[in-house]
Amino acid sequence: MEQKLLDSKTIFKLRVLEELSKREVVDLDELSGELGVQATEISAIIDEMRKNYLIRVEDSSVIWLAGDNPSRIKPWGWSYIYKTIVGSTMHVAKRLPSWSIVVAEYQVHGYGRHGKEWISDLGGVWITFKFPLEEQIAQYLPIAIPVILCELFKEKFSVDAKIKWPNDIVVNRGKLAGIIIEGEYYKNRLHVYAGIGINVNNDPKLEKAVSLKNITGKLVPRNRIISYLSGVMGRIEKYIENYKKLQAQYLELLETLGRRVAVLVLGDGAITGKVIGVTETGDLVVDTGVEKVKLSSTEVYELKYL
Amino acid sequence: MEQKLLDSKTIFKLRVLEELSKREVVDLDELSGELGVQATEISAIIDEMRKNYLIRVEDSSVIWLAGDNPSRIKPWGWSYIYKTIVGSTMHVAKRLPSWSIVVAEYQVHGYGRHGKEWISDLGGVWITFKFPLEEQIAQYLPIAIPVILCELFKEKFSVDAKIKWPNDIVVNRGKLAGIIIEGEYYKNRLHVYAGIGINVNNDPKLEKAVSLKNITGKLVPRNRIISYLSGVMGRIEKYIENYKKLQAQYLELLETLGRRVAVLVLGDGAITGKVIGVTETGDLVVDTGVEKVKLSSTEVYELKYL
Repeated sequence: MEQKLLDSKTIFKLRVLEELSKREVVDLDELSGELGVQATEISAIIDEMRKNYLIRVEDSSVIWLAGDNPSRIKPWGWSYIYKTIVGSTMHVAKRLPSWSIVVAEYQVHGYGRHGKEWISDLGGVWITFKFPLEEQIAQYLPIAIPVILCELFKEKFSVDAKIKWPNDIVVNRGKLAGIIIEGEYYKNRLHVYAGIGINVNNDPKLEKAVSLKNITGKLVPRNRIISYLSGVMGRIEKYIENYKKLQAQYLELLETLGRRVAVLVLGDGAITGKVIGVTETGDLVVDTGVEKVKLSSTEVYELKYL
Repeated sequence: MEQKLLDSKTIFKLRVLEELSKREVVDLDELSGELGVQATEISAIIDEMRKNYLIRVEDSSVIWLAGDNPSRIKPWGWSYIYKTIVGSTMHVAKRLPSWSIVVAEYQVHGYGRHGKEWISDLGGVWITFKFPLEEQIAQYLPIAIPVILCELFKEKFSVDAKIKWPNDIVVNRGKLAGIIIEGEYYKNRLHVYAGIGINVNNDPKLEKAVSLKNITGKLVPRNRIISYLSGVMGRIEKYIENYKKLQAQYLELLETLGRRVAVLVLGDGAITGKVIGVTETGDLVVDTGVEKVKLSSTEVYELKYL
């Protein structure tokens, strides 16, 4: 396994969240004893955490706003697992039955498409949905989920996000969310893992990433996001039924359409050209000037705007 | 708070110990799901852990030998707290009533005398005893605890350890254990914190440190050590009663006696000379050639052999 260094502050912050997830209110002195650090140090840790969590201190008690505490909810119809620290939520879901949701505060080895590292710093929503789905419906997930996320951002936070093909959610200033979809056959049935990472109240370290907090200027109660997504993902088949409409929505949100791009194709080097369309199942159509090339998301390692 | 970097493997190992402390037997697949890492990665982690813990794998189940699992014991007469990761066991004990024991697998900010960093890597015994004690008895603790540790090593593991003044336990090859004693008055009564760090099955990174495993060539079930110490510390007053005998034992074990040393005295620079004795309460007597100097452990930052 690839080694990674975590700073001790992150560890202590996760321990604080763990204690806060067990009890409604935690005394500062109690926290100091649980973690084995001085009371003044705990105060400094909590102070820092307030940049990324809806946490407040009253009369030396620490209170985590229920709406931002993902351990507090039980999405209807799902088995719901909340963890502070994991390798990745995708791997936790692998061992769970279908109709499970896994949420973690921190992923040590979060990953995106093609195993690229996904940085999961404190305050974001890192979530995996596992559920059974017919193949002919599952093929539309890469189109449906980006649309669902854009609708979520628009409806709940008045944020106009766009799709960067195949399924990054972006605003002008950078990447707001990412999606990874995996599947597995068990007893002749397809089970889907939909991993979604959303920069919510975290402070993304990457230059080209941005969080909802950065955009809206305030902290967001994350359970609104988790509840919304749990509801929509629970009836995703209904959502995909009218895939003509879905596709139209996808194309309307797709900022990649019409752009000149450089595409790194696995095993085939780089292609440059203009994006002239997307097929029904989400393949990109690029006009290189010489020919029209169809590219699936599985073969595209990276796409850059020129 | 001083920042520190922890490697992600250590974090996963501590998560494994946490799961193992909850259940007798844990399935490898279950562990993989709990931690959110691939099954092959879990196997690699467990394999590595077997260098520092009495853990074995049977039919893809992980079993932690009860005698090495400190969460399994309840020392008689003590309130006993086991934790995988803490800032320091001393700080955990600060918030607990007297007659508490705190044991941790890993200390992020373990410290020794004068706040020097104490490295608490995986597989050691890092423990704090908190109990009330009369002052006139407490003053002999710095003499009693080193003797107790040397007796423990001799009786249980046939290891001849010596004392390096004031209270490091050493063998030829390096430091085997360290002691830190703090006190606190509460309702006119003295409460003592006796912090003991023993390199047991860990692999000390410092050149001048050595573990019981290094010396004996095999892993030691750590609960033997914790139980022994809990027993002796519970009747420490009896132990100190005959302090003449105790002092004789201390002097016999004190390898510092007769040695030429360089002593760094706080606020007073360095002194060199020959160690010619130790007073009843543990002060070092050094003959500098010009004069005889009495040095208390609180004013000595460091002592080196010449």
